[in-house]
Amino acid sequence: MSEQYSSGPLAGITVVGLEQAISAPLCTRHLADLGARVIKVEQPGYGDSTRHYDTVVGGMSAHFTWLNHGKESAALDLKDPADLDVLRNLLAAADVLVSNLGPGALDRLGLGVDTLSRDHPRLIIVDISGYGKGGPQDHKRAYDLLIQAEAGSCSITGTPGHPAKPGIPIADIGTALYAYSAVLAALYDRERTGRGAVIPLAMLDTVAEMMGFALNQVLHAGTEPVPVGMGSPMIAPYGAYRTADDQVAVLGTTSDREWRRLAGLIGRPEVADDPRYAHNDDRVRCRAELDEMVGQWCATRSLADVQAEADAAGIGNARLNGVAELAVHPQLGARDRWRAVGTPSGPAPALVPPALAIGWPVRHGSVPALGADTAAIRTEFGTAAHTT
Amino acid sequence: MSEQYSSGPLAGITVVGLEQAISAPLCTRHLADLGARVIKVEQPGYGDSTRHYDTVVGGMSAHFTWLNHGKESAALDLKDPADLDVLRNLLAAADVLVSNLGPGALDRLGLGVDTLSRDHPRLIIVDISGYGKGGPQDHKRAYDLLIQAEAGSCSITGTPGHPAKPGIPIADIGTALYAYSAVLAALYDRERTGRGAVIPLAMLDTVAEMMGFALNQVLHAGTEPVPVGMGSPMIAPYGAYRTADDQVAVLGTTSDREWRRLAGLIGRPEVADDPRYAHNDDRVRCRAELDEMVGQWCATRSLADVQAEADAAGIGNARLNGVAELAVHPQLGARDRWRAVGTPSGPAPALVPPALAIGWPVRHGSVPALGADTAAIRTEFGTAAHTT
Repeated sequence: MSEQYSSGPLAGITVVGLEQAISAPLCTRHLADLGARVIKVEQPGYGDSTRHYDTVVGGMSAHFTWLNHGKESAALDLKDPADLDVLRNLLAAADVLVSNLGPGALDRLGLGVDTLSRDHPRLIIVDISGYGKGGPQDHKRAYDLLIQAEAGSCSITGTPGHPAKPGIPIADIGTALYAYSAVLAALYDRERTGRGAVIPLAMLDTVAEMMGFALNQVLHAGTEPVPVGMGSPMIAPYGAYRTADDQVAVLGTTSDREWRRLAGLIGRPEVADDPRYAHNDDRVRCRAELDEMVGQWCATRSLADVQAEADAAGIGNARLNGVAELAVHPQLGARDRWRAVGTPSGPAPALVPPALAIGWPVRHGSVPALGADTAAIRTEFGTAAHTT
Repeated sequence: MSEQYSSGPLAGITVVGLEQAISAPLCTRHLADLGARVIKVEQPGYGDSTRHYDTVVGGMSAHFTWLNHGKESAALDLKDPADLDVLRNLLAAADVLVSNLGPGALDRLGLGVDTLSRDHPRLIIVDISGYGKGGPQDHKRAYDLLIQAEAGSCSITGTPGHPAKPGIPIADIGTALYAYSAVLAALYDRERTGRGAVIPLAMLDTVAEMMGFALNQVLHAGTEPVPVGMGSPMIAPYGAYRTADDQVAVLGTTSDREWRRLAGLIGRPEVADDPRYAHNDDRVRCRAELDEMVGQWCATRSLADVQAEADAAGIGNARLNGVAELAVHPQLGARDRWRAVGTPSGPAPALVPPALAIGWPVRHGSVPALGADTAAIRTEFGTAAHTT
């Protein structure tokens, strides 16, 4: 509607989110970040389950606040024919539908993807599921942990015998980003063809794609990658090492040339050209002894010295930070990466989206209370009989 | 050129990749997946460092094969004025440049982003760095591990005192997907405005965005999320439990209603309405005792029984798989998710991209040997003096 939709590359685009949790909501939030109008359709009374994870942001949850600024919330009772009509009219006016409801939910509403696509040939529909259509598991519920476990992501994280779920919900976020990019590709395509698109998207496929390097190891070498704590299963030396001032430095080398520089840095020039360590796959086999060499060197220096000497030698390095340290990270502050977004209890900090072109505006939308826009949406999209 | 560029939504789009490792190569691979012509510019003799990680795919590495099918490889010596001219002419003809060379590398080539954007106003430029421009760390090298460590991702993965790097390189892949979506948004924008775009993209910003939920916890509640192995710092019960047949089931619940169903499932109906477990944040505080209840129930059943009973109760569940199990996952097979791509040593399996609209073609490009297309590219884009 007003000003807030008047700029950004997606100004004029209307998105409907039949959405919950992370994958669809992050997709539509990024569409809102680019200027689209996003109408989030929620169940009256309860709404998106992430609303109820906690109450840390003035009564709203950490997850919900992160994922939903810049949207309108319409709490529609889709069992009520009048509200279902509102949704139908909304879809008729929309450019994009992003849905991640449970298996079969759209069909039960009479809004199956085939029907919608036939009735609205310019509509771009992203239909997110856990396991895709067809196959023995297509009925199964899916959450981030379940898909990461099923797709092997946990098996290459942690330590041998102690798999771990990556703290960042990769299955959800990866699916969000594939949904987001697919919508953008379909919008571009529609400019020339005039046609919308139906994009089925399975969370399992997303994580399987991200596992491509590990799949190739298994398919071609027959070796199962093992988790190596702070390291990477396929690169060495590459890990975390305690420093003399009891901090943790992270060092890595991904090429043979860097390996030779690293050998010099840690005072072991004699190993630089040792054929046992010549190539990355050699070094992966000798991971333990290389980690010990690097670890011994770090243990005799402060973190600041480790970083300064590594920088001077052209060796990548970093600090192992907690979340509190990320919150005050100097690169986020110095580069003005924080903005304020609205919430029902006042403004809250949020990061600027990672990938805006220079000149695209940064929006400052608000996180809607459940159903904050229901009346307005009913008025705008209800049939006359229902709105009077 | 030939057939392979004649279809897909990005048919007719030319992309230049001044790229290495994962982030830019995965971005341009997905652009190739949609039909773009992608010309990967590499250093003669050595090329992209991921070529040298291992040799498992008939001499090519697992990583390189995953990330580079469907591209041409031009090995150009950018210190040679003739080859630099080839690159300049290539950029003049291109729609998109994606670069993730080290800090300052483009400037040293006389191809700074400002110059390129002025000379080629329709060009879409994605300039990937570790830490962005400005701030005390903008000169620093960046790899996946370094950025994940710096951005707190490792601190919420693993177990307390034993942080871990997610095995999937989230910093690289997330950056690739933000780059990919930004290119698509800029292509859409260019259709209406006629203008290209400059998109600076910092890996740190990508991971910080993905940490949004954890940042909100720290910013608003002042509590540092702790890693919980196979669980999630902010949801409970949600984890991995050993079954009677010594497999590992993964179960989770993300809402209060599901919690009550789960309590019934595990034969503890009396806890369903216990106020100590009423809401997710209550359950997070009681994680250990809830994990014990769920674990006891799983320990008395086979994995198959756990899954069947959980399915019947509407509780999401999965199996903890290794990579070899992903390679033969029935959902990937039954849904025809594998395609063949070419490599210099013959065809190799690769997954179909996760998010194609119905009707968009699946391409079957090849992984190029280093410099496989150098002569053709020099002929096509060299100035007359250099090509004769």
